[in-house]
Amino acid sequence: MEVPKSHPRYESLTQRGKIEEGVKEGYVALVGMVAHGRGECFDYLMGEKTTNTAEKAERVAAAVLLKAKNPVISINGNVAALCAREVVYLAKSLNAKIEVNLFYWDEEREKRMDAILRKNGADEVYGTNEEFKVKVPNLDSKRGRVDERGIYNADVVLVPLEDGDRTETLVAMGKTVVAIDLNPLSRTAQKASLSVIDNVTRAIPNIRKFSDELDKGEIDYVIEDFNNKKNLKESINEMKNNLDRLSL
Amino acid sequence: MEVPKSHPRYESLTQRGKIEEGVKEGYVALVGMVAHGRGECFDYLMGEKTTNTAEKAERVAAAVLLKAKNPVISINGNVAALCAREVVYLAKSLNAKIEVNLFYWDEEREKRMDAILRKNGADEVYGTNEEFKVKVPNLDSKRGRVDERGIYNADVVLVPLEDGDRTETLVAMGKTVVAIDLNPLSRTAQKASLSVIDNVTRAIPNIRKFSDELDKGEIDYVIEDFNNKKNLKESINEMKNNLDRLSL
Repeated sequence: MEVPKSHPRYESLTQRGKIEEGVKEGYVALVGMVAHGRGECFDYLMGEKTTNTAEKAERVAAAVLLKAKNPVISINGNVAALCAREVVYLAKSLNAKIEVNLFYWDEEREKRMDAILRKNGADEVYGTNEEFKVKVPNLDSKRGRVDERGIYNADVVLVPLEDGDRTETLVAMGKTVVAIDLNPLSRTAQKASLSVIDNVTRAIPNIRKFSDELDKGEIDYVIEDFNNKKNLKESINEMKNNLDRLSL
Repeated sequence: MEVPKSHPRYESLTQRGKIEEGVKEGYVALVGMVAHGRGECFDYLMGEKTTNTAEKAERVAAAVLLKAKNPVISINGNVAALCAREVVYLAKSLNAKIEVNLFYWDEEREKRMDAILRKNGADEVYGTNEEFKVKVPNLDSKRGRVDERGIYNADVVLVPLEDGDRTETLVAMGKTVVAIDLNPLSRTAQKASLSVIDNVTRAIPNIRKFSDELDKGEIDYVIEDFNNKKNLKESINEMKNNLDRLSL
């Protein structure tokens, strides 16, 4: 799909086109289109920009990921379609692993995900080798298996666009879960250790920027100074303010 | 997709499954999935029920359609997937025509739409015969052609899930446009003569119910008593109140 750059909805339409391409290439599940539509709606209500509240959470996300011993970035089809290259950049900058996690798993999609991530510069992709897969509690086997070298032993997991069940499971396993989700009311956003309420295509490069900028000495303070519940409430307020603005 | 009736999101997941089926059967465009996702989001913010505000608009919609001389219901892929049978019931109860209008037109999809509507009881389906198609102003030829026996000569057009351009064109052609749209801020909702902010699967049967109940003597009063702008503002307020409720 070619959208002229001058189109007022250029960014949004380009992102939608990427998801559509991902479906056609077979690594985005068909219902990934529905999830993307929900994301479009929330992004619209958030003003289609990174709010100050989101930026604050992104800075803390960078600090948490920099402090981690074994950080892993979990990737599904929509994230790969929207920003595979940015994910690879972020992983390199954090020295984090990249792990494929498909909600609607099948072997073919997993292979395609591996290929897309490598094409975008990933040297290693976890979660694509049966030999290393282990089952996590409370989830059925298709979507409940993780890489023992990756998420299973991670202390911090970054989950862009994750579902609520998996988020809760990871938290219950004692991990620090950093979620990126445009819906501040979702179970993922509500249950994560740290919730970034922003579009992944903006959040991922922002977290990378902050991870490059943050001083080692600042990290602990940045983390301690942050209140996730308070920040989430602030995001909901921003949505309400945008509704007022949009309804004028 | 089989969703157990006890599932808390049964209605929503069933609707999503119908759209997915429509894509697989070839009459719903792939991006119809994205539009449906946006709808899910707004429905969620509306509380996934018909609000009093929506019900008021549905009663007026019934009155406007009963008063019409040549009412036409415009149908796209998503509407056919979600509630083809309810549309046919409504058309019969109003003595209205049904016209196929595809945003992403192609001949094959048009044929499938015709088949789906007939399978659900439609005796006649307009907008599927090249011989009667005429071009309307300001729209490109693929999505700017209507049936001269249907929408072209209609005084009232019911457009469930319509895009802003087409809504504006129909209004500019002097027609009374009744829109069903879950986004009270959309151009469609803002430009229509009458805006029903509700899920089509609830709005269509509700309009039918009101068309059966309304007394001939009431019709003019019901229409005159209604202020669409005020009602739209009320819908936006309901969304804000739901945000408060959901964020508790």
